[in-house]
Amino acid sequence: MARTGRRRGNVDTKRQIVDVARAQFAELGYDGVSLRGIARAAGVDPALVHHYFDGKSGLFADVMQLPVDPALALPIVLDGELDQLGERLLRFFIGLWESPETGPRMRAALRTALSSEESSRRLGDFVAREIMTRLAARLDSDRPQLRATLTGSQLIGLAVGRYLVQVDPLTQASVEELVTATAPTLQRYLTGPLPS
Amino acid sequence: MARTGRRRGNVDTKRQIVDVARAQFAELGYDGVSLRGIARAAGVDPALVHHYFDGKSGLFADVMQLPVDPALALPIVLDGELDQLGERLLRFFIGLWESPETGPRMRAALRTALSSEESSRRLGDFVAREIMTRLAARLDSDRPQLRATLTGSQLIGLAVGRYLVQVDPLTQASVEELVTATAPTLQRYLTGPLPS
Repeated sequence: MARTGRRRGNVDTKRQIVDVARAQFAELGYDGVSLRGIARAAGVDPALVHHYFDGKSGLFADVMQLPVDPALALPIVLDGELDQLGERLLRFFIGLWESPETGPRMRAALRTALSSEESSRRLGDFVAREIMTRLAARLDSDRPQLRATLTGSQLIGLAVGRYLVQVDPLTQASVEELVTATAPTLQRYLTGPLPS
Repeated sequence: MARTGRRRGNVDTKRQIVDVARAQFAELGYDGVSLRGIARAAGVDPALVHHYFDGKSGLFADVMQLPVDPALALPIVLDGELDQLGERLLRFFIGLWESPETGPRMRAALRTALSSEESSRRLGDFVAREIMTRLAARLDSDRPQLRATLTGSQLIGLAVGRYLVQVDPLTQASVEELVTATAPTLQRYLTGPLPS
């Protein structure tokens, strides 16, 4: 009984933290939220928040029901040759959308995020902080932040066209066709000449 | 009095056609709808639908509150040198989003269209039929439809990143910076070598 009670207590506490986090992200935006503030509002020890979630990025991923926490996944993708980074990013990104396990959650999360101005901006802050900054830090060219967001624009455009709006033949093209057609675009944004 | 009555009658008839069209687009999808069927359901003469709207594309644009009917605007953009088409498309597209008059309507229309699976598919059918087919017909390379949708993916990705999610520095970049950075991508998709 004690074990069951403790287990249920943990589930409730975790859910309570997620609920508080959801409200705070909505009210304060991604950048305005701190794990300490969430712990205070939830009436729990900050160490407990850290125990359940791998930092703010992981907590946001949980709130948004994202299938991956970019703070954990991105370093693995960024590791490796810089002149193949475009293709690695593309294959990882497309993989998230193609997989029967993560694809439906990616579609639902993007739809939800884009449905209102407020949630779009929240997603934007998260993407800037947790994805674009990491990607830019991996580059050693001029204007790394602009390069990162241009890369993001082609990736998100593929997602919207192929998985949300579903325009043929973009939807019917094979993953290999997509990679061959768009990896050079990403690689040029990341490491190619960028007009000043 | 008679004039006022007739004028109001026209406004009511036009609104009635739009209401019927909205319902039919939702029920049957873009491709499943005909102007004749809409006229029948609205209890008006088909000639009246043609009188108020420039074809199905214009009626859909009205229902979606799009600021432009691509069937009218696109031929103007497509006209001209093929090796500058990427930049022309880009400048026209960005112009729609940047303008204080059309920008807010573009944002609202895209948000609404992406908010549900059904409305996304409807937008997809419309884009395929009224935009991609016209763009592909202008190209004289292999796989024109795939080229058109790849072009569309970069355009819509710019719109989502810069105007909906608003990730800096994509949002703060000048139009000229965007054009110099992404026009080569569009031009490669349109007329460049495409891996088979």
